[in-house]
Amino acid sequence: MKIPKIRAYVLDGLAHAFNPKSIAVVGASRSSTKVGWNIIKKLREDGYKGKIYPVNPRAHPYPIFGEKTYKTVRDIPEPVDLVVIAVPFFLVKSVMKDCVANGAKIAVVISSGFKEVGAKELEEEITNYCRNNGFPFIGPNLLGLGNTHSNLNLGFMPYLPKKGNVAIFSQSGANLLAWLGMSRTQRLGISLFTGLGNMADIGFPEFIIYAGKDKNTKVIALYIEGLQSKKEFIKACQEVVPKKPIIALAAGSESTKGKSAAAAHTGSTALTSEEYDKLFEEAGIIRVRTQQEFVDVALALSMQPLPKGGWVFITNGGGSGVLATDECARRGLDLLEIKGFLKQQMRAAVGPLGSPLNPVDLTGMATWRDYKMAMEAAITNPDVGGIVVSVCPTSITYPEKIAVIIYEIYKKYKDLGKPIIAQFQGGPECERANNWLKDRGIPSYLTPEQAVAGMAALSKYAEIKSKFS
Amino acid sequence: MKIPKIRAYVLDGLAHAFNPKSIAVVGASRSSTKVGWNIIKKLREDGYKGKIYPVNPRAHPYPIFGEKTYKTVRDIPEPVDLVVIAVPFFLVKSVMKDCVANGAKIAVVISSGFKEVGAKELEEEITNYCRNNGFPFIGPNLLGLGNTHSNLNLGFMPYLPKKGNVAIFSQSGANLLAWLGMSRTQRLGISLFTGLGNMADIGFPEFIIYAGKDKNTKVIALYIEGLQSKKEFIKACQEVVPKKPIIALAAGSESTKGKSAAAAHTGSTALTSEEYDKLFEEAGIIRVRTQQEFVDVALALSMQPLPKGGWVFITNGGGSGVLATDECARRGLDLLEIKGFLKQQMRAAVGPLGSPLNPVDLTGMATWRDYKMAMEAAITNPDVGGIVVSVCPTSITYPEKIAVIIYEIYKKYKDLGKPIIAQFQGGPECERANNWLKDRGIPSYLTPEQAVAGMAALSKYAEIKSKFS
Repeated sequence: MKIPKIRAYVLDGLAHAFNPKSIAVVGASRSSTKVGWNIIKKLREDGYKGKIYPVNPRAHPYPIFGEKTYKTVRDIPEPVDLVVIAVPFFLVKSVMKDCVANGAKIAVVISSGFKEVGAKELEEEITNYCRNNGFPFIGPNLLGLGNTHSNLNLGFMPYLPKKGNVAIFSQSGANLLAWLGMSRTQRLGISLFTGLGNMADIGFPEFIIYAGKDKNTKVIALYIEGLQSKKEFIKACQEVVPKKPIIALAAGSESTKGKSAAAAHTGSTALTSEEYDKLFEEAGIIRVRTQQEFVDVALALSMQPLPKGGWVFITNGGGSGVLATDECARRGLDLLEIKGFLKQQMRAAVGPLGSPLNPVDLTGMATWRDYKMAMEAAITNPDVGGIVVSVCPTSITYPEKIAVIIYEIYKKYKDLGKPIIAQFQGGPECERANNWLKDRGIPSYLTPEQAVAGMAALSKYAEIKSKFS
Repeated sequence: MKIPKIRAYVLDGLAHAFNPKSIAVVGASRSSTKVGWNIIKKLREDGYKGKIYPVNPRAHPYPIFGEKTYKTVRDIPEPVDLVVIAVPFFLVKSVMKDCVANGAKIAVVISSGFKEVGAKELEEEITNYCRNNGFPFIGPNLLGLGNTHSNLNLGFMPYLPKKGNVAIFSQSGANLLAWLGMSRTQRLGISLFTGLGNMADIGFPEFIIYAGKDKNTKVIALYIEGLQSKKEFIKACQEVVPKKPIIALAAGSESTKGKSAAAAHTGSTALTSEEYDKLFEEAGIIRVRTQQEFVDVALALSMQPLPKGGWVFITNGGGSGVLATDECARRGLDLLEIKGFLKQQMRAAVGPLGSPLNPVDLTGMATWRDYKMAMEAAITNPDVGGIVVSVCPTSITYPEKIAVIIYEIYKKYKDLGKPIIAQFQGGPECERANNWLKDRGIPSYLTPEQAVAGMAALSKYAEIKSKFS
């Protein structure tokens, strides 16, 4: 198959896919055991307000969920924005013909039974037909897609994720589900989300360009098992990264076994880890390595401005500072060297038993006043690019109180445009403090290593932005 | 200072420290703003049932918390099991003399102001005095210690951790607090826990030997910023690892900055990362790298038996399988090659769209019956050493139901002695499933990488055990 350049009609189709005024569900059913029934139920449950056209020759003329049914998409009296196809694979091509006849804007093919099980020819035949008729489609073989900003949850996702500004495009439905779920428990706000399925027609580049223009998206996050064209991928990324950061988890790259697993899963050919490193460097992508790091890094990029200098890590736990320093070393990130007036200020904040070096160790005796003094000194200092506030609950350090102080400092000095990251290590009281801050726009993590992952991503994107702008 | 070999009176002292029938609190106070008051309050609140002797010349003769007060430890009419010292540093030596006079078994010195601020001579003077009198002490400059099995929470820990079988000895109070807190939210059961402080008298080796003998401890977990003697450390570990696994997070080892941070924190000299690798290999220690991995690895070792062969990774998410395979590659762990009869069985379980390779991909269409079939086939197969069950919630895969199936299989085949690990990736429903299983003895993680960390640790300890036995 030819790898297309960015196509205007596809971008237009994606705009309709993520903000549809009308949706036709082909394979709609009155039986609650059927996929088609569940798709309509989910759409309505999660708040989709537009028009729904159930399509099923056997259900016609009985209404489904109170909506008039149609025999085919062709019979729908107006051009439909989005057609969802959930019928057996051998019917998909004829549905595509109906879509073209209707003047529909785009299709999402949920159906499986294509390249992933060896039926490459059928998939290519459908793709060629659609491309020749200028009709774009997402899939086949995918979990679904959605947009929190239009209350759109189309497919098999149990619920809408938390609303926010991170767009996720994933070649794995399972990992997409993981992140949608974690968006709730870990407070990562999501805008667009799509399982890409087999990427027969639309691949990463057009999703990236589209998300680059989407007004609700600030960060683009990719889960990749293989690319159709490195060249088109790099081009799309390079166009977008001056405006928005792109992060990627490239899987199946660590071994030949990983490659086989990816091949068995999506029929993709994974690159090696080194090849991805090179590719991502050229594309201006921030690479992440694990499912958790994907969330941690997206969180920082989605919430905070970029640092214009080195970081100061302020903690009441010497041990947290040591772990943070180790993680900085592993990521090649240097903490700011504290000297001059800032050092004097820090010495005052840490008291006789602490350390004014970076990490700044306020010691276990630190109160909220000490935190406040150290934070204000750091954030107002022109050499300081950003600050991390790490907290370990002691009998005199109350996480909830420190969280409030962090939020106050954040509001007071927001105009300085410096990033603030928090980290509360411990039990339920720390979870509460972390969530409270995340709900107010401050990334806040459980462990020092996660906080450093967030810092490193912000610093890395500052570099990428200046390189590609 | 001379580095002592293992001393019998120290082991006896530790037995009293972790199971004290009586505790003298030196620096006890009637003022709720004072450390000594809080120590007694915490002891009683968390359920310590033994005798408490408040000691404070100024409080005498007024009772504190209803207990008769004493001017000095010397005045207490019976030898005390454990003396807690929370007085200014310059008074510590005279308190030690009182302890010796009383015939006390061991002291815990909470007070700071010693080596960590440069007062090395005073610390050595006290240590020499105590050693010459055969009186052991823990600290100085430490957070506290405890034992969930005797409801002992002595020091600054806000609450007792979840009861269990992991002993934690930490050179960082902040990281100890993190793990005590995470023990609650992440269901890691803990037996003994101690902040080691400056380790003036008792260092890692004696704690390790003691925990090796403690009947409630199955796993020993260390946070290390520096060692007094590699030789004594290795010897102690080698003695214990044939019976119990030891894991260690060695911090400050990744850079010279990390070394400085560790030096500023505990006055320790950290080894380099490569030196630690070598040391741990020789000692039979499982190395972990992050605060979270410390918990993940301890969890698996604390709950499950060791594998006697390769692992089978069963999932309904192709993408989770790919991430797991990558993490296996990074950890040098091979999944079992599935062949012969097991392959036929897996083919039946996965259906036409899945993959019977390892990871076994049941696909998003998997029901609890498919999971059950695959799990039973795997666990009863003689080639299989252990299984991981990875679950991504879909519209037909309910985490709670699969969790019950996993628990049933676990109970049914417990006699086979094969480890089972679970992993539920997603939102609140997955958190519930993970916690439900952990409360029943099955390690269950949020992400595939964490599950692989657990697998790798069990496999590694199986290797270590056979090497050192």
